Amino acid sequence: MPTRDERVSALLEQLSAATPTPGGGSAAALVGSIAASLVAMVAGLTVGKKAYQSVAHEMRYVLTEALNLRDELLACADRDSAAFNAVMAAYKLPQQTESDRTAREKAIQSALQSATEVPYQTALYCSRVLELAEIVVTKGNKSALSDSGTAACLAEGALQAALLNVAMNLSAISDEAFTTIYSQERERLSAQAHAKRHRLFQMIAERLGA
Amino acid sequence: MPTRDERVSALLEQLSAATPTPGGGSAAALVGSIAASLVAMVAGLTVGKKAYQSVAHEMRYVLTEALNLRDELLACADRDSAAFNAVMAAYKLPQQTESDRTAREKAIQSALQSATEVPYQTALYCSRVLELAEIVVTKGNKSALSDSGTAACLAEGALQAALLNVAMNLSAISDEAFTTIYSQERERLSAQAHAKRHRLFQMIAERLGA
Repeated sequence: MPTRDERVSALLEQLSAATPTPGGGSAAALVGSIAASLVAMVAGLTVGKKAYQSVAHEMRYVLTEALNLRDELLACADRDSAAFNAVMAAYKLPQQTESDRTAREKAIQSALQSATEVPYQTALYCSRVLELAEIVVTKGNKSALSDSGTAACLAEGALQAALLNVAMNLSAISDEAFTTIYSQERERLSAQAHAKRHRLFQMIAERLGA
Repeated sequence: MPTRDERVSALLEQLSAATPTPGGGSAAALVGSIAASLVAMVAGLTVGKKAYQSVAHEMRYVLTEALNLRDELLACADRDSAAFNAVMAAYKLPQQTESDRTAREKAIQSALQSATEVPYQTALYCSRVLELAEIVVTKGNKSALSDSGTAACLAEGALQAALLNVAMNLSAISDEAFTTIYSQERERLSAQAHAKRHRLFQMIAERLGA
């Protein structure tokens, strides 16, 4: 059943179960989707309020994009489980003959690359959610500042989590051109998000105190 | 409907809607519950594995406690919405007479204190999830290291988010004895979690490379 149709209790049972999927990659995508939902909520609580008339257009744009990211990230949760299941299926391919082993290794490497691309995409989406969270933290309805801040904390946590899943898969991939690019991207996104989190914490503290 | 019985799509719709509840406090608790689920998963994937026989007892204990925290945190999601709704109801009390206004202010302050205690409890539970995540990161099944790391990232993000919700309510509370205690606790938990996150990132990088 797709994640969107699951009941929360059933989803948590599946995550808790001693089976590899759904696992960390799916959980990270789901949390990114929750963060995007909160950004949409704050944008919605800002649009139409007189005191925030000057940012109404920007908030309408944030609202639309956040809802879109919410849905994309939820889809990533399912794609992550599918990609990981494909890796496990490849590991189970026959390894009797030399040609079996070559085919199996090729299938494993191909599946691992796909299983890297999904959490990388999740991280990219989360980094966009984090940018939108920054907009609602700085310009959104101040009554919902803790919701904006929550969106930022959760998007950043989900992003770092997704990147750990990228790193885990990279450690088993033999194509150096692939691992070099994704390692660089991983470090770039992680450092960028870490710095943004630090800046946002300061902004929130200032806006709370003001 | 309690969060546990909601479908994921409906829950995300509610979070995205331009209504204050469910909001950041509930989202933080839900994400803490997701993190606890992942800790339980890794503990379950470690128990019974020959290579991890020496930590089997510890993992059984981690599994039980993580499942318990998963359920407690999910309950916090509902308690947070209820507590916030009580604050909004108090703000709507009549303010015609002097005695109305005194009663209203008393009701608001009392509701705000309850609405502070719930995310504080969420943060405490998340800090416990983070401790358990550290155990599975360092001693759990290495094949699930990215799941352990994901649990840590998500628990820490949820903890910081819950503490923002504490701070937001504190800013409207007049009882100085109350705000002093909770402000100190908030800073202590936040700094502790931030330091643990930093340490865990290093541990994960080392264990991934080893």
